[in-house]
Amino acid sequence: MTGFRHVVLFTWIEGTTTAQVEEVAARLSDLPGVVPEIRAYSLGSDAGVNPGSADFAIVADFDDRDAYLAYRDNPEHRAVVDGMKPLIASRTAVQYEL
Amino acid sequence: MTGFRHVVLFTWIEGTTTAQVEEVAARLSDLPGVVPEIRAYSLGSDAGVNPGSADFAIVADFDDRDAYLAYRDNPEHRAVVDGMKPLIASRTAVQYEL
Repeated sequence: MTGFRHVVLFTWIEGTTTAQVEEVAARLSDLPGVVPEIRAYSLGSDAGVNPGSADFAIVADFDDRDAYLAYRDNPEHRAVVDGMKPLIASRTAVQYEL
Repeated sequence: MTGFRHVVLFTWIEGTTTAQVEEVAARLSDLPGVVPEIRAYSLGSDAGVNPGSADFAIVADFDDRDAYLAYRDNPEHRAVVDGMKPLIASRTAVQYEL
């Protein structure tokens, strides 16, 4: 499989509610419908299998680097990111060639 | 797509060489051949698109939680992880239901 993958892991601030996370997940899940460059989009809360894990993951696949950059800078995506920011304690990301 | 996804992001210690990372990548890439529970396995170095990204990502898919746990505790996997440890500055991971 060729392409370009964006992986981001978040931890939420103390007191973030399940409802808030579900709202974030719902808004993120809408993005494939409005950002045409998204080829695959997967997200979810940590399953609690290992201690010390982060809280939430997004894995997004694109045809190439430019398609990822279009997603990154897309106003619909930026709006969702801005909405998440108050909840984010930490963010770790990598983008890599598939 | 159902299943269980393991996502881990690493940063390497100062002075880690490209050759060392390539050796890690090679040993990790061997795992699908010896760990039957792996359904999909993708890894790569950060493409340098965004400042502040981590250095390396692994995204591994399994049929379910138990299959992931078998991978996590598999001696072949443990040996590769032990070999990587001296190079790891930080590790962030999430496992989630697909």
